[in-house]
Amino acid sequence: MWSNPVRSREKGASIAHVLEMIRTHPGKPPVDEQVLSRCIEACYDCAQSCTSCADACLAEQDAQTLVRCIRLNLDCAEVCATTGNLLTREVEFDFDVARTVVEACAVACRVCGDECERHAQHMEHCRVCAETCRECEQACNDVVASLTA
Amino acid sequence: MWSNPVRSREKGASIAHVLEMIRTHPGKPPVDEQVLSRCIEACYDCAQSCTSCADACLAEQDAQTLVRCIRLNLDCAEVCATTGNLLTREVEFDFDVARTVVEACAVACRVCGDECERHAQHMEHCRVCAETCRECEQACNDVVASLTA
Amino acid sequence: MWSNPVRSREKGASIAHVLEMIRTHPGKPPVDEQVLSRCIEACYDCAQSCTSCADACLAEQDAQTLVRCIRLNLDCAEVCATTGNLLTREVEFDFDVARTVVEACAVACRVCGDECERHAQHMEHCRVCAETCRECEQACNDVVASLTA
Amino acid sequence: MWSNPVRSREKGASIAHVLEMIRTHPGKPPVDEQVLSRCIEACYDCAQSCTSCADACLAEQDAQTLVRCIRLNLDCAEVCATTGNLLTREVEFDFDVARTVVEACAVACRVCGDECERHAQHMEHCRVCAETCRECEQACNDVVASLTA
Repeated sequence: MWSNPVRSREKGASIAHVLEMIRTHPGKPPVDEQVLSRCIEACYDCAQSCTSCADACLAEQDAQTLVRCIRLNLDCAEVCATTGNLLTREVEFDFDVARTVVEACAVACRVCGDECERHAQHMEHCRVCAETCRECEQACNDVVASLTA
Repeated sequence: MWSNPVRSREKGASIAHVLEMIRTHPGKPPVDEQVLSRCIEACYDCAQSCTSCADACLAEQDAQTLVRCIRLNLDCAEVCATTGNLLTREVEFDFDVARTVVEACAVACRVCGDECERHAQHMEHCRVCAETCRECEQACNDVVASLTA
Repeated sequence: MWSNPVRSREKGASIAHVLEMIRTHPGKPPVDEQVLSRCIEACYDCAQSCTSCADACLAEQDAQTLVRCIRLNLDCAEVCATTGNLLTREVEFDFDVARTVVEACAVACRVCGDECERHAQHMEHCRVCAETCRECEQACNDVVASLTA
Repeated sequence: MWSNPVRSREKGASIAHVLEMIRTHPGKPPVDEQVLSRCIEACYDCAQSCTSCADACLAEQDAQTLVRCIRLNLDCAEVCATTGNLLTREVEFDFDVARTVVEACAVACRVCGDECERHAQHMEHCRVCAETCRECEQACNDVVASLTA
């Protein structure tokens, strides 16, 4: 139902203005702008889907069995939002702080994605959320690779 | 430079999964799903562009003259993030809380958009940010109209 | 158990440094520093207790009956954190933005406090959380009164 | 001025309800409750003082020379808030996620504290903020030690 043509086209699309904001910033991004913008978008996307998945789990009849999923979703949502904001800031970018925060984000996404995947078969919101967690984990790992290059 | 065809196509695009998460949620959204998803996307988009604009202003040579813009960007970014998360949650949606929060978000976007617009002529990041503030203000007003309908 | 003398003394105490930060700020606070610092402290305190109460409710055997409490706690926690941060910023303080945000915070605290109170008899975390919501609602109303004076 | 007896007494005091919320939670805290509550309090305290210090720096006449301090304050504030919330949640506590996030918080506090200390001689808000950063860094390290014990 939710995979209609309109959505398919939009899939993988981005927050409208991330790349535009990077390109109008007076400074130079700390890593390649494509790698950076993909990670910022993935962080915001994952923050949103985890917030939504926690709420959807809470609305399920068997919410009691989804407590671990809800909890990890809440953690992951906040860590992703903080990471997306940190990577949005370019001025006086500190590589040590950035690397440890983005690494922590990758861990939060991995653990949350693993949990969501366990429920993906019978709950579509967990399937979609697992997907956004995977994308964000990968995007974070790409940024860490760039930061340590 | 940042208005190349690729960006134009992406412009107005969305966080990839908002509508998908709404449609896989076991509950019923509190307002029309298009109005709701547009506002959630606009809130996240505006949170990102305001975070970026505050940082870009700080990187300008005349940052000292942009203190009001930086401050309003920081306020608007946080209010938008909170509003985007609140609207993402559907379970036991409280109309009173939602309405006052979304109204406050519209005010934060209006005041921040006005300030960014004052600098739009000579700073592209303020021009783009003013645009996302306007879009978010409008999307918030649409949600408030739906909530009070 | 938690009402031992040590706690009683600490009760009503504050984040250690709010007033100190206000007094070392080069600017002038937008409202009376006591009214302001009490509200900032109450916002952070309420953000923490609501985050904790949501989690405690989730840990209860009958979590399924506490969905509304969890949801309102999550809303209130985020609104309080945003409000506490906004009130912490003094530079170029915008009275319109501040007033609507602090009013929205008072509403979020009132609605969440009402819900927590319904469970206060049999769950201590809801009793404590209702108390912090009331304190924060009052502190917000005091700030709004000062802002509109 | 801000070191009057009243403040000295309050110094080291806490958000009023952290320990009370831990003790009324139906679960068992993941680490010693004193170590945990000290860290949660330190995170919220540091989030507040960093938000305030960024704003105070922005209000200084030579804000242009404080850009690195402002930026690190913004990063540290968000990381501390996220860490304080994550540690507040006890249900289905994930040790891997918690350890990497708390370690990242310690790094953010160390780097921000170092920068604030450089300005501590001539700006009291940086002196106070450096102090809260140190306290939070230490509290985070204590939690990490407990989590890996």
